[in-house]
Amino acid sequence: MSNAKALPLLEPTVEPCCPPLAERPLTAEEAERTAVMFKALGDPVRLRLFSSIASHEGGEACVCDISDVGVSQPTVSHHLKKLKEAGLLSSERRGTWVYYRVEPAVLAAMGQLLTRAAAV
Amino acid sequence: MSNAKALPLLEPTVEPCCPPLAERPLTAEEAERTAVMFKALGDPVRLRLFSSIASHEGGEACVCDISDVGVSQPTVSHHLKKLKEAGLLSSERRGTWVYYRVEPAVLAAMGQLLTRAAAV
Repeated sequence: MSNAKALPLLEPTVEPCCPPLAERPLTAEEAERTAVMFKALGDPVRLRLFSSIASHEGGEACVCDISDVGVSQPTVSHHLKKLKEAGLLSSERRGTWVYYRVEPAVLAAMGQLLTRAAAV
Repeated sequence: MSNAKALPLLEPTVEPCCPPLAERPLTAEEAERTAVMFKALGDPVRLRLFSSIASHEGGEACVCDISDVGVSQPTVSHHLKKLKEAGLLSSERRGTWVYYRVEPAVLAAMGQLLTRAAAV
């Protein structure tokens, strides 16, 4: 007898943090969580780094690919850490380099907060 | 003879500040402009005020409608000014009160920056 059972497929879900901004006033707790993500993109250097990764081949890049934004390597690392803490990037070490990847589901959820608010 | 001519319909245009974040790395100038808008939403109190206005009847509200976020009136005014400076709200005085309204085109453009980035 086999223990192998068909496991339910886990679809990658877009987990919206909150309702669209125009649906109802956010609660304090929802606003805290959402503001962290917007704040992460609210810095020009972070936005350029993020855009460099998002537009890089395959939607991922190593630090070696994205150091041309005119700030020092420690500053780049600091900003990448902030983006990661906000859930906008994930990272993976491969050999010498750490590769960063955008989190499409999180971005899509943020986009929906705004575009659905805009549609009202 | 009538002077009435069919005028071309002016579609409300969504003027994107910048290309989607995944299209190419943002320039320094594009990142500066875009970061201002994300930063404006990167504060929990501003986000609650913004959400209160966006979800209010007709997509607009006066200060008298949105003072229940637990901060003083001068703080509310300060945050509304920041949102206005970032181009996310417009305002109009009517009698005693100033009414604030969300700028759907700006929001939609911000949303597209993110959702198109997420689709790559």
